[in-house]
Amino acid sequence: MSYTIAVDVGGTQIRAACYPPESIIPVKIERSPTRCPDKPPLECMFDLIRSVWPEDQDVEAIGVAAPGPLNPYTGVIAEAPNIPGWINLPLRQYTQERFKVPVAVGNDANLAALAEWKYGVGRGHHHLVYLTVSTGIGGGVIIDDKLLLGTQGLAAELGHITVLPGGPMCGCGHPGHLEALSSGTGIVNWVKEEIEGGIVTSLVHEHPLTAAKIAAAARNGDELAMNAFTRAGSYLGLTIANFLHIFNPTIVVIGGGVSQSGNLLLDPMRSAMQVATLSPQYLENLTITTAALGDEVGLIGALALAHSFKG
Amino acid sequence: MSYTIAVDVGGTQIRAACYPPESIIPVKIERSPTRCPDKPPLECMFDLIRSVWPEDQDVEAIGVAAPGPLNPYTGVIAEAPNIPGWINLPLRQYTQERFKVPVAVGNDANLAALAEWKYGVGRGHHHLVYLTVSTGIGGGVIIDDKLLLGTQGLAAELGHITVLPGGPMCGCGHPGHLEALSSGTGIVNWVKEEIEGGIVTSLVHEHPLTAAKIAAAARNGDELAMNAFTRAGSYLGLTIANFLHIFNPTIVVIGGGVSQSGNLLLDPMRSAMQVATLSPQYLENLTITTAALGDEVGLIGALALAHSFKG
Repeated sequence: MSYTIAVDVGGTQIRAACYPPESIIPVKIERSPTRCPDKPPLECMFDLIRSVWPEDQDVEAIGVAAPGPLNPYTGVIAEAPNIPGWINLPLRQYTQERFKVPVAVGNDANLAALAEWKYGVGRGHHHLVYLTVSTGIGGGVIIDDKLLLGTQGLAAELGHITVLPGGPMCGCGHPGHLEALSSGTGIVNWVKEEIEGGIVTSLVHEHPLTAAKIAAAARNGDELAMNAFTRAGSYLGLTIANFLHIFNPTIVVIGGGVSQSGNLLLDPMRSAMQVATLSPQYLENLTITTAALGDEVGLIGALALAHSFKG
Repeated sequence: MSYTIAVDVGGTQIRAACYPPESIIPVKIERSPTRCPDKPPLECMFDLIRSVWPEDQDVEAIGVAAPGPLNPYTGVIAEAPNIPGWINLPLRQYTQERFKVPVAVGNDANLAALAEWKYGVGRGHHHLVYLTVSTGIGGGVIIDDKLLLGTQGLAAELGHITVLPGGPMCGCGHPGHLEALSSGTGIVNWVKEEIEGGIVTSLVHEHPLTAAKIAAAARNGDELAMNAFTRAGSYLGLTIANFLHIFNPTIVVIGGGVSQSGNLLLDPMRSAMQVATLSPQYLENLTITTAALGDEVGLIGALALAHSFKG
């Protein structure tokens, strides 16, 4: 029997897990900080892979979920934010050379979409849009049972869509992107600006201010905090309506930490989406739901990638 | 040898043409107004098909390009704007019953994209975005050599993307769509508003005002007319940048009557697109061009559909 190894490389943590055939329950899982004190992140990743390698079994393939723009066809990382030295890194080639098994590399948000489609809330759907709403906003799209990649694998950057021309600056340096309006960072920045403008709020002494603290304040009736989620959810819903017109999916999946604020974000999102949708046909048989796979979605996506894209 | 018949149903004109095998040069082409004086549009379309039917040859398939939301899987027209009685019309079924050959029905903008990809400027590309900028704005997308349709065939409604929240009203009743900003109608409406606001222009006595007249005035140095195209082109370019981030194509094709205003529209479009693009990678090997197939793009798209989607 052949096992599969999945790796999820994040800005703060790398995880590796070993899966038996036809299972998404790992037999072994290990973690380490991405910035190890004594070795570069790539060696740290290699050590983790070794640590979960099965003793008496073959490994069929390795799948790696990595952040930032990367080319899934070549397995070259263009530039991984927050990972020192990962610029134009041929991650697939280096990993294949080291372990002598086929390796596939994919963008973490794309792979989260793949995971939810194959093993999560998206099972049975053929057209899926996935958004992870967290510090930033990432996306992944399944069309006719296939991941949308584009010519260099740079497609589905759904957080970097201009939603409000001239709006707040995104981390990428462009104004008015969905990420700048509806991500955790976007919510925090808006609340900070309102506080600086003199708005009264229970959040005035919170340092550092986080989206989770703003969600807690909203639940306690803080008006500014509620408005912050209404604003973020409304722009998110408006943008999802655009995605309905573009992709005509049967399911939209919202993952990521900020989605755990639940209806604070999702109620205004749904309202704005319905108002902005071109015709009721787009909403027929449409499921809007939060993600099912939680924290291990990156690993499970890397596993699905290794299964679908061996060699 | 088996021939193919293609039909292009527009709001003002229906065209039918008969093509020999492996050719996009019709052996016969006929036209008639969509609103015939003495019969409904469907009978008019049937008569046109009969009029181009080859005498001594078999017909292998019929492809039909039709406007408005329609389901290409079932061939049912949801509602064709400007065509009396075409509401929930099972066009594919009726046409198959009448002519006893396989019939395929597709959205005209989608089929224009298919035509440019198969026979026009998009040949050899695998990832194409097509926009027709005319009275309205329609779209079509090729991903991995396949037309993007979505679950009910309602995908790629690229004119109905919110580009400016709270912006001018679109014909569909939603504010700030690309179509309301950058179509011929959008250009005319903006110029009218500016004239009502007292702006001085050579266009003040033009009735009816058209995008072609505004283009002519812009070429003669009319400042308002130039600003109208700069504005429309800039919003178009901003939206195309979004489509690069969403689809990561190798070619963007601009068709439709307003694209014939050339650099008046295309220069500001290119500038805005470049400014708004996330990273230079999206622009590497990217072609931005006007359409090649001109007025017969609908017929050629219907022909391509009949070839690719028989039965």
